[in-house]
Amino acid sequence: MATTLGELAVRYGCTVQGDPDVPISRVGTLLDAAGEAISFLANPAYRKQLAATHAAAVILAPEDAAQCPVSCLITDNPYALYARIATDLNPSSEAAPGVHASAVVGEDADIAPGVCISAKVCIGSGVRLAQGVFIGPGCVIGDRCELGTGTRLTANVTLCADTRIGARGLVHAGAVLGADGFGIARDGDRWIKVPQLGGLRLGDDVEVGANTTIDRGAIEDTIIGDGVKLDNQVQVGHNVRIGEHTVVAGCVAIAGSVTIGKRCMIGGAAGIVGHIALGDDVVISAFTFVSHSLGQAGVYSGSMPVDRSARWRRNAARLRHLDELAKKVRALEKKLAENEVAYSVHEKDESK
Amino acid sequence: MATTLGELAVRYGCTVQGDPDVPISRVGTLLDAAGEAISFLANPAYRKQLAATHAAAVILAPEDAAQCPVSCLITDNPYALYARIATDLNPSSEAAPGVHASAVVGEDADIAPGVCISAKVCIGSGVRLAQGVFIGPGCVIGDRCELGTGTRLTANVTLCADTRIGARGLVHAGAVLGADGFGIARDGDRWIKVPQLGGLRLGDDVEVGANTTIDRGAIEDTIIGDGVKLDNQVQVGHNVRIGEHTVVAGCVAIAGSVTIGKRCMIGGAAGIVGHIALGDDVVISAFTFVSHSLGQAGVYSGSMPVDRSARWRRNAARLRHLDELAKKVRALEKKLAENEVAYSVHEKDESK
Amino acid sequence: MATTLGELAVRYGCTVQGDPDVPISRVGTLLDAAGEAISFLANPAYRKQLAATHAAAVILAPEDAAQCPVSCLITDNPYALYARIATDLNPSSEAAPGVHASAVVGEDADIAPGVCISAKVCIGSGVRLAQGVFIGPGCVIGDRCELGTGTRLTANVTLCADTRIGARGLVHAGAVLGADGFGIARDGDRWIKVPQLGGLRLGDDVEVGANTTIDRGAIEDTIIGDGVKLDNQVQVGHNVRIGEHTVVAGCVAIAGSVTIGKRCMIGGAAGIVGHIALGDDVVISAFTFVSHSLGQAGVYSGSMPVDRSARWRRNAARLRHLDELAKKVRALEKKLAENEVAYSVHEKDESK
Repeated sequence: MATTLGELAVRYGCTVQGDPDVPISRVGTLLDAAGEAISFLANPAYRKQLAATHAAAVILAPEDAAQCPVSCLITDNPYALYARIATDLNPSSEAAPGVHASAVVGEDADIAPGVCISAKVCIGSGVRLAQGVFIGPGCVIGDRCELGTGTRLTANVTLCADTRIGARGLVHAGAVLGADGFGIARDGDRWIKVPQLGGLRLGDDVEVGANTTIDRGAIEDTIIGDGVKLDNQVQVGHNVRIGEHTVVAGCVAIAGSVTIGKRCMIGGAAGIVGHIALGDDVVISAFTFVSHSLGQAGVYSGSMPVDRSARWRRNAARLRHLDELAKKVRALEKKLAENEVAYSVHEKDESK
Repeated sequence: MATTLGELAVRYGCTVQGDPDVPISRVGTLLDAAGEAISFLANPAYRKQLAATHAAAVILAPEDAAQCPVSCLITDNPYALYARIATDLNPSSEAAPGVHASAVVGEDADIAPGVCISAKVCIGSGVRLAQGVFIGPGCVIGDRCELGTGTRLTANVTLCADTRIGARGLVHAGAVLGADGFGIARDGDRWIKVPQLGGLRLGDDVEVGANTTIDRGAIEDTIIGDGVKLDNQVQVGHNVRIGEHTVVAGCVAIAGSVTIGKRCMIGGAAGIVGHIALGDDVVISAFTFVSHSLGQAGVYSGSMPVDRSARWRRNAARLRHLDELAKKVRALEKKLAENEVAYSVHEKDESK
Repeated sequence: MATTLGELAVRYGCTVQGDPDVPISRVGTLLDAAGEAISFLANPAYRKQLAATHAAAVILAPEDAAQCPVSCLITDNPYALYARIATDLNPSSEAAPGVHASAVVGEDADIAPGVCISAKVCIGSGVRLAQGVFIGPGCVIGDRCELGTGTRLTANVTLCADTRIGARGLVHAGAVLGADGFGIARDGDRWIKVPQLGGLRLGDDVEVGANTTIDRGAIEDTIIGDGVKLDNQVQVGHNVRIGEHTVVAGCVAIAGSVTIGKRCMIGGAAGIVGHIALGDDVVISAFTFVSHSLGQAGVYSGSMPVDRSARWRRNAARLRHLDELAKKVRALEKKLAENEVAYSVHEKDESK
């Protein structure tokens, strides 16, 4: 879809600096864009690339406009505007509706018009697929699952029984939704399985990354709120509740019965222990282990600093004796205080 | 399956407090159970919910019986009893035996009566499936695999060649069992592949979580003992041996040639370096990196505490200089000791 | 394939100690090899097993030859030689070329002679498969993917559209290549998707572990260099570039826009924050979080030491006050210095 800078400015209500007739037909990076490609500047780390860009135009914030060597679109949120324009310029190809001959579909499945079911798909009984749902090749959908309007499963996704996804969902390849939670009860020296009887509900506009797993509830449902975005290889345990518009980066491990508030941001490879709660607007840095509830909004961190191995080894050895070190410091403080008292007494004695 | 509290007490040899004729037909949480639902109290964190419960009855320990506002079943292990009763009340629906028309089964596969092979399954040559095995949709089973009585693969599971699973196993969706271990040999500036020639053996009553991976052995087999339970997204490297009834929570990374004892508990997102051994009854806390063998039973931890980012940043900066700090403390101790000697000499001199 | 020790020595240009006519037909460990099995000694940790071996012969380094109780092959790199000999002794069984009747292949796919496409495979349009490619059961290959000569996808692998793999690649089960990166733009209280328009390119001789995920680029391609080896459950974000012959152990999380140099080694369960660069020959220890660029070659670490829980808890509590502790030490140093000045002044006064 080709357009001009001026048309984009009108469509999105923002300001053009430079030539509104510049043709725009694709996107590109600041470094490599050329021809009719529009680029963007959102992360200040890339500001130094602006001067040398050969993009047809750049989407940027007001404070960067003066330094822009080419035409630009000025907006307070360049990244969001870039996302919209990139979506316009690259409309996703619509899959043709229909059920592939190799798909196996439960007899009582309720499939709306406009649904596309690809090759090698298995769909259980009592499944309901709304208008515009896309089921990619190799997906398995268990009994009684429900998918809202326009929701897409890309390929080889597994939805276990009783998984419900709202509208406009997007689930990437290899994700497993609604598998049993890790419910085991100790019984002497062995463990017996606790049946996982709850389901899994995802709200509208939820994105689930490749090979991510979200467990069904033990008794009640696991619940993922509207607008939640989960990256790849995230693990969400049973009975977890994630509030609306929270985002979770790759490889995060969320144990069972955790409650996460709205608009939280969980950094990559973080871990959250079971049975705790994070409030709204909590931000967790990457590689941080959250071992207790964090009620207040704010940014929390807890990773160990990386260092040259030799130096790290010395520090780590000291770390194992940190408690003793703190006690030594306390002892020094006391001794010094006593000495001072003794010394001042001595001085007084002398001055008599 | 409906029953009464009294019937459950008889079946499991425990005590009723209250009305044995209360009908029980399902389970529920303390907060939400109502009607004929039985609940349980096992985790003390939920004790405060007991007073307000509307459950028909509660399974609990003797010390909680006095506070229970409704009828109850009294047992020393409420969670295990709950697991048994929940299983009774929710019998899993038996899949009809047979091979789906869309499944592809190797000609010489040895398939016992009562086996269910679902749609889109591929089974290699020389495979042996015992009585009651269930193979869910999309599973791929390599040559010479063997599955014991009643073992179930839920969906989209991959068993590579030579994987053997005992009786009553349960493997969740997306798990990959028996893939090549990470065997590479440095050869100048590049790496060459070391053939992975061993197999993989799982004992009886093993559960494997969704998207978990367990590698085959390099020369001999990787071995997972009876009763081991692995949660989702666990990685088990080649030549690992896990002892009986050990449980491993989600996202744990176990490197190659690790030996883990019996009845261990490995917390979520922990990591275990290669070529080490954990003794029996070792407990590893979540997010802990085990860098050396731990022979003695006990609880081991090693995560960095989470904190407000600003404060964490200050502490982390100091951590990078912990060795210098410890040396400063040592220097202070020496100097103070010297001063005291000097001071006492001085005092003695004066007192002459 | 059976041979003799002498034939192996000739083929690989190394020295025999002992009987060159020893027949060799398989490999084994030092502990368990017997009969015609050849073993190897590469890791010094296993040196003590050499004396008791019943292997027909052992591959080892010159310094270990004197202690070898059986015949041996002497080489500077025993593990690499073992890899080559094990490969010779265990030739992989060639899959018969052809397309299984249950596979679904896009009409315009360009499939070279000698390609094997297994059961339940789905191949999109515009796909190009070179000579000797093997596509295992259940794999899904999106539009316009290209696979080089001899590349193998074992089973249930998903290649999203526009993924290109060079020659002799090996992708293990459950891996997802080319899924959307985690591109989201904040827009008020919610997040909007940033289209992921780049592709994914893997060089020659790349191995990708089970359930590993590598995202496509946001605008330009994600690029994995020749000879790179990724273990299981690795996550590689969008726009990442990994240099040639770098190896990444299991469960590593690499965030978006990271550049990793050549010949790096990344230990298991490590994490790398987004938008940074690691130079050539950088080695990262297991469970280390890399939070900033590391330009210089060398070994870097950052894991917290594991300890008995009780002791760890005391140290962790102190760690939360490390900054205060460092300030106390500074205060002690100052005070002691002041006291010394005062004391020496006092002494001088007295000596007058």
